[in-house]
Amino acid sequence: MITNLQFNEKGLIPAVVQDADTGEVLMLGYMNEEALRRTLSGDDVWFYSRSRQELWHKGETSGNYIKVKSVWQDCDSDTILVRAHPTGPVCHTGNKTCFFQELTKQDL
Amino acid sequence: MITNLQFNEKGLIPAVVQDADTGEVLMLGYMNEEALRRTLSGDDVWFYSRSRQELWHKGETSGNYIKVKSVWQDCDSDTILVRAHPTGPVCHTGNKTCFFQELTKQDL
Repeated sequence: MITNLQFNEKGLIPAVVQDADTGEVLMLGYMNEEALRRTLSGDDVWFYSRSRQELWHKGETSGNYIKVKSVWQDCDSDTILVRAHPTGPVCHTGNKTCFFQELTKQDL
Repeated sequence: MITNLQFNEKGLIPAVVQDADTGEVLMLGYMNEEALRRTLSGDDVWFYSRSRQELWHKGETSGNYIKVKSVWQDCDSDTILVRAHPTGPVCHTGNKTCFFQELTKQDL
């Protein structure tokens, strides 16, 4: 499909999701080719769930779909960035972003 | 070291780097435990280079070091977010960010 994208040995590519309005980094998920195809073709972000080993329409359980604004590849074609509009908290904990826990050198 | 972090089967964890001032997502790299330890302990972002299979002090060649502002883990402890101040273009192409190529459904 997308000829030059580098999917890993499991057929997946990491995808960073960023709030297109606030710039906040919301989560990182993994897409297979079909998830990327659906993300580029439709309105919502799709992933491949590594734990469930199936396509994952993000929000299908919570109702908090993520609406795609634009999709980008990085310079060496092995990472995706999705700029998007979340319709609710992205994190399963109810937080807006999955990155709500800070690490410091005291954690070492 | 950081007890609950989930490094993958290769001992690596993906790390998103974001410009702490502009919110721009700059790159995604991979850290091993030592790279994360140095990133948390010092001033600069460190990665593990998968191609060279060695610790990678980002900027050691270009001079464009990335200064760490804060480090975050995600909800399931398998991704890192570094909010940082780049001292020059992050991408080896000379672009400020590695995500300068947009994908559209025409790329399918």
